[in-house]
Amino acid sequence: MLDSIMKVAIFFGSQSDTAIMKKAADVLRDFGVEFSSYPISAHRAGKLLAQTVEQFESEGGEVIIAGAGLAAHLPGVIASMTVLPVIGVPLNGGKVGGLDALLSIVQMPKQIPVATVGLDNAANAAYLACSILAIKYPDLKAKLVAFRAKLAQDIAENLGGGNVL
Amino acid sequence: MLDSIMKVAIFFGSQSDTAIMKKAADVLRDFGVEFSSYPISAHRAGKLLAQTVEQFESEGGEVIIAGAGLAAHLPGVIASMTVLPVIGVPLNGGKVGGLDALLSIVQMPKQIPVATVGLDNAANAAYLACSILAIKYPDLKAKLVAFRAKLAQDIAENLGGGNVL
Amino acid sequence: MLDSIMKVAIFFGSQSDTAIMKKAADVLRDFGVEFSSYPISAHRAGKLLAQTVEQFESEGGEVIIAGAGLAAHLPGVIASMTVLPVIGVPLNGGKVGGLDALLSIVQMPKQIPVATVGLDNAANAAYLACSILAIKYPDLKAKLVAFRAKLAQDIAENLGGGNVL
Amino acid sequence: MLDSIMKVAIFFGSQSDTAIMKKAADVLRDFGVEFSSYPISAHRAGKLLAQTVEQFESEGGEVIIAGAGLAAHLPGVIASMTVLPVIGVPLNGGKVGGLDALLSIVQMPKQIPVATVGLDNAANAAYLACSILAIKYPDLKAKLVAFRAKLAQDIAENLGGGNVL
Amino acid sequence: MLDSIMKVAIFFGSQSDTAIMKKAADVLRDFGVEFSSYPISAHRAGKLLAQTVEQFESEGGEVIIAGAGLAAHLPGVIASMTVLPVIGVPLNGGKVGGLDALLSIVQMPKQIPVATVGLDNAANAAYLACSILAIKYPDLKAKLVAFRAKLAQDIAENLGGGNVL
Amino acid sequence: MLDSIMKVAIFFGSQSDTAIMKKAADVLRDFGVEFSSYPISAHRAGKLLAQTVEQFESEGGEVIIAGAGLAAHLPGVIASMTVLPVIGVPLNGGKVGGLDALLSIVQMPKQIPVATVGLDNAANAAYLACSILAIKYPDLKAKLVAFRAKLAQDIAENLGGGNVL
Amino acid sequence: MLDSIMKVAIFFGSQSDTAIMKKAADVLRDFGVEFSSYPISAHRAGKLLAQTVEQFESEGGEVIIAGAGLAAHLPGVIASMTVLPVIGVPLNGGKVGGLDALLSIVQMPKQIPVATVGLDNAANAAYLACSILAIKYPDLKAKLVAFRAKLAQDIAENLGGGNVL
Amino acid sequence: MLDSIMKVAIFFGSQSDTAIMKKAADVLRDFGVEFSSYPISAHRAGKLLAQTVEQFESEGGEVIIAGAGLAAHLPGVIASMTVLPVIGVPLNGGKVGGLDALLSIVQMPKQIPVATVGLDNAANAAYLACSILAIKYPDLKAKLVAFRAKLAQDIAENLGGGNVL
Repeated sequence: MLDSIMKVAIFFGSQSDTAIMKKAADVLRDFGVEFSSYPISAHRAGKLLAQTVEQFESEGGEVIIAGAGLAAHLPGVIASMTVLPVIGVPLNGGKVGGLDALLSIVQMPKQIPVATVGLDNAANAAYLACSILAIKYPDLKAKLVAFRAKLAQDIAENLGGGNVL
Repeated sequence: MLDSIMKVAIFFGSQSDTAIMKKAADVLRDFGVEFSSYPISAHRAGKLLAQTVEQFESEGGEVIIAGAGLAAHLPGVIASMTVLPVIGVPLNGGKVGGLDALLSIVQMPKQIPVATVGLDNAANAAYLACSILAIKYPDLKAKLVAFRAKLAQDIAENLGGGNVL
Repeated sequence: MLDSIMKVAIFFGSQSDTAIMKKAADVLRDFGVEFSSYPISAHRAGKLLAQTVEQFESEGGEVIIAGAGLAAHLPGVIASMTVLPVIGVPLNGGKVGGLDALLSIVQMPKQIPVATVGLDNAANAAYLACSILAIKYPDLKAKLVAFRAKLAQDIAENLGGGNVL
Repeated sequence: MLDSIMKVAIFFGSQSDTAIMKKAADVLRDFGVEFSSYPISAHRAGKLLAQTVEQFESEGGEVIIAGAGLAAHLPGVIASMTVLPVIGVPLNGGKVGGLDALLSIVQMPKQIPVATVGLDNAANAAYLACSILAIKYPDLKAKLVAFRAKLAQDIAENLGGGNVL
Repeated sequence: MLDSIMKVAIFFGSQSDTAIMKKAADVLRDFGVEFSSYPISAHRAGKLLAQTVEQFESEGGEVIIAGAGLAAHLPGVIASMTVLPVIGVPLNGGKVGGLDALLSIVQMPKQIPVATVGLDNAANAAYLACSILAIKYPDLKAKLVAFRAKLAQDIAENLGGGNVL
Repeated sequence: MLDSIMKVAIFFGSQSDTAIMKKAADVLRDFGVEFSSYPISAHRAGKLLAQTVEQFESEGGEVIIAGAGLAAHLPGVIASMTVLPVIGVPLNGGKVGGLDALLSIVQMPKQIPVATVGLDNAANAAYLACSILAIKYPDLKAKLVAFRAKLAQDIAENLGGGNVL
Repeated sequence: MLDSIMKVAIFFGSQSDTAIMKKAADVLRDFGVEFSSYPISAHRAGKLLAQTVEQFESEGGEVIIAGAGLAAHLPGVIASMTVLPVIGVPLNGGKVGGLDALLSIVQMPKQIPVATVGLDNAANAAYLACSILAIKYPDLKAKLVAFRAKLAQDIAENLGGGNVL
Repeated sequence: MLDSIMKVAIFFGSQSDTAIMKKAADVLRDFGVEFSSYPISAHRAGKLLAQTVEQFESEGGEVIIAGAGLAAHLPGVIASMTVLPVIGVPLNGGKVGGLDALLSIVQMPKQIPVATVGLDNAANAAYLACSILAIKYPDLKAKLVAFRAKLAQDIAENLGGGNVL
């Protein structure tokens, strides 16, 4: 584990998002990054959200992941509360092909960015969090480099001599 | 004017939205509805926004209009701060055909609705505010009924005998 | 119940929309708002629709909810018949991601607004109806305020110490 | 001219649509089809619209063309008032790429069809009206056949020997 | 039956479209309109298509319905072969929400219109065919008027006293 | 020039497409590939189109480029007439963001493919035609390889030492 | 088989694409075209991809098929590595209706085209590969011509006398 | 300036993107972050791109910004070459509303994320880069906090007493 404090916080807007957001947690665990997690709706508990974000930052938190669906304001609202990097995961609730969540997260106004990843791609939010932390923690960077090398090696070993179809 | 207090507040996220949001102001003036107006970005001045919404409500405000573009969080964030009816105006910043602002406003999660009108249609936000106030203020309802009758009459008088093309 | 007359009418275009529109009815019941409900297609029974809207208004009705799918004209057609606030619920029939119903309802021409809520979000139409009525009925406003406080409290109580993933 | 009565009526929702709808008028004149034209908004003058449609039909009218933009209800509302064939022209007001008008016109519910043509393609509405009338009026069919032959001939004469680029 | 010849031809591009296109056949049978039906792909059997269209027209055929999915060229290709009114049914194959078939059919170039109905709405193609034929066959018009009256009556009889939710 | 016969034919649906399609011609000239060009609408001159395609193929033609807008049937209709490779260029007429032409060309049914390039990207159609011809003509392949090398070299020479902003 | 070397290579980005890409393999087998196949992610094993493409080309390979989903870079990345014709198959992973993969493949920048076929239409990629090879291999062209004739004949034999609905 | 080495590299695919990407450079200068900039097309100069990315990383570079339009592969291709955080800026070339570039960048496959910001929003890419660097450089974090406070203060000072419309 990186030191022994929480480096990443995972926020999500609804209990129903738990299954997808758990994929981010799994990746962080694989890389030994400690994290906390908070199911807090920006629209239903805005003050609790502000307190939680402030406390996370004051205790040394460094990166925030936030997943939300529909008019997915959670990542942007968090981004308005902190200068920590905020990674947004648009969750595809099944309407209009997921464009609602994607555009609600990525099209942030100038000066308040959200680092958006793909639809339902909570794992990538965690990989991105690792990449960000890795500019500060060389051990984590080494793990990422090794992980990438392993990915390439696995593919090479499964080519099947160009004869898989 | 309805009594002599502000019944409606018009919020918008950026000075550059002034020209479009002015159309809402014009309609409210035509119907004698007093209003205040606040260019406050939800993302850049969240605390000021919360204070202003709270003060407007505590002073007897009744309906809120909020216009925003891109990842248009302003109406939804205001809706999370009050139970007053919030009317959202998606502003078409020219990207992805305006779907970003429209979906960011209309696709609110359960329990926290925003009454969304058409793209750049600030005038309709004001007409809707009047319809809402009119359930309480009979004089305003009478004005709306007369206005609608006038619209129909104007069309009837300009039919040109079925011979306009 | 608010007084003892119908405050809200729920219209919908087809018997097949019953299940979704029932969610609006459930919310209104929870808040003690009396309502009537009418499955009337604007395209198949236009005169019956006009009569029903007129009667509802003449008997003191105050807010209309209308749900429709596909080329969802019902809310707009009702809005053309009354100055009461009309809340439109786009119903996602599964084609083009629901954009047909959403755009057919929200993109109303100037002067005749429809207060549009999210796709299939009939519950939010009812919450919005409550917010509108609440500007006139203080008891209802108090219920809404309490309901919002309860939502926030429930979230706070289920945070699980930041340790849910 | 076909007999000496109006065979086609052209409706449109707003004076601002005049320029585009005139292209339908031009085609009808070219083919000697008499027509009347009515700028009547379905939302602002619904009763006048109903009266005009009824009178057109009672006087022997046979085909209706209706152009509208945004939440383009005009063609569908007319289709609900008559069993005459109704041709809808979606007018691209510049929002969401014209999908609003197109989907609002074409996605009509079962039993009440609108014959939809392309965005802003008022000329094609008139050609379609001619094709429909031609099943009853042989002279008009002959004109259409000759017109199509002329189109093909013009192309053949302008091939430039395969050497135009 | 209208006289005793085929008035309508139903074309479709693939055997897999049979189930949906059968809904058009059912409506035509209900109204006593004789029809023939042809599963012919425009892309795989273009010459057979041209011969069939020509024969249908030469034998007194009057209206053509054509259903197709994906890059749905069938209705437009038929429209290029005849001046008979051609009604296009976009079939939603499940990709890009059906926009492929819809746009491929409705966005025809000037002079060669296709009367487009809603996605998978083969029934409406048949109702539209009836409306077109009805300008020539008064008995069919009477049936359509009666059918519409019945639709409205059914709705009126099932209102349930405004108490269905 | 490759031998001295036409290797490529460029078809397009309307004279108004000339300016964009000329970009394909320019690339072919740069690579010394002879071509012919034909402005023939599939919908207005279907028989002339069939004759021209057949003649081009019988005279040794090898690749076809076809550009079209709106419900862009031209490339697919040509593909139904020949087994030569057909490259489709969707032309953005300004409606629905060009999705109409793109989907009308790319979503061809099984067995009859069209090789689709980007919106308005007629130049790429010509580069693709060169790549296809290059599997047979080694001189052309050598030119393509040299061209690509030149592209990379130009970029390397204009890097400005990492200091261009 | 054409000579006895690999003429076509099929690349795809993920093992999960195997089932769809197999349809391309089946078509190639039917036409006696030899092929190799490689599941190599452009993003996870870029160097292996470059080596494999280079080797395929150096050993006389002539056409490449590449299928990918989401931000489908694989076909374009391969196109940047070779002047061989590259055919891209957008795979619909279920998000945003497949527009992500389609646009990521077809909208290539000038000079580096990808021949794009329809969503999930791997079979058409193979038919297109055959058409391309057929400009060089007359036997393959003869097979394609016969195949097309058979398609048309099958349709003619299954017309059912115009009486299938 | 942070130390005296390059912390950020800005890549973009085409000279024509210079004007928009310059906005990222301006923000970095305002915050005293040193950067280099490279106009390198992933498709036309892939090897140069790989060398440049490798060199930037080996010299201590920490964050990469990459802007691209159309089938915008540049950010994803760079992300495949390094574990440094890569921020993608989709550039709206005017086709399909910018969805091509947005989806091509954001929908990256698992394990290889790109931190995507809004369309043409190069400034936000730079603000995000600052947020990322700020987890390591406290001085930069202090500047960001001050900057945000200034934004809020400016809004508060320009409220105009609620009287701007």
